[in-house]
Amino acid sequence: MSHYPRVEHIAIAVENLEAAISVYAAILGRLDSGRETVESEGVRIGFFDLGGARLELLEPLSEDSPVGRFLTRRGPGLHHLALEVDDIEAALERCRAAGLRTVGDAPRQGAGGRLVAFLHPEGTGGVLVELSQAPG
Amino acid sequence: MSHYPRVEHIAIAVENLEAAISVYAAILGRLDSGRETVESEGVRIGFFDLGGARLELLEPLSEDSPVGRFLTRRGPGLHHLALEVDDIEAALERCRAAGLRTVGDAPRQGAGGRLVAFLHPEGTGGVLVELSQAPG
Repeated sequence: MSHYPRVEHIAIAVENLEAAISVYAAILGRLDSGRETVESEGVRIGFFDLGGARLELLEPLSEDSPVGRFLTRRGPGLHHLALEVDDIEAALERCRAAGLRTVGDAPRQGAGGRLVAFLHPEGTGGVLVELSQAPG
Repeated sequence: MSHYPRVEHIAIAVENLEAAISVYAAILGRLDSGRETVESEGVRIGFFDLGGARLELLEPLSEDSPVGRFLTRRGPGLHHLALEVDDIEAALERCRAAGLRTVGDAPRQGAGGRLVAFLHPEGTGGVLVELSQAPG
């Protein structure tokens, strides 16, 4: 049986990445976070690999980035939910048939050679859903 | 190596459970959702078991339940993040030492014999974090 789709990561928008990493290290009892800057998305990411779903903390590089605008509008909090699928084209076809819209190009090239697509929160109960297909 | 903590579930507050289940069934390409009513939390839950982290959709039983008030205040969207820990007392001790507050009794008896505790969003970057320890 396929183990797809699965939750690939949960992303949290934060104002201060290092402060947030300290808090989640305390909650998780782990200090082994990674850090990555993704200029194209205007974001600095801190992450904890938890064996299954990954936890990502997102600090915007500027106020007019997507995460910067999210912080201005809603304040810090859960930002998006990423689901890993084995076939992103098939998943997008299902979503469009259900009347869901995507945000921007879909699918597009994401970090680590992944194909990613974002579903507009309007159709998903207010949740920005990322679909993600591993490379290869 | 311990595989704890891990993401146990992600919960989404929705206005109409059956409509939300249809949408997520389309996104996931799966129809095998479960349903459960938890009177003590004032909520009807639809869930998808995804092999790792579970996806939960929460519809309030009344407007003055916690999820009902969340919907009134913020609208539908990501509601909380549940982390499974192997020792909830040790986790709470770490969290309190880091200056985090809990919401209500902590830990308390949750569904399925679990011990659960909620961390106040104020200290966690706006995220209601549930800590959860499996029974036994």
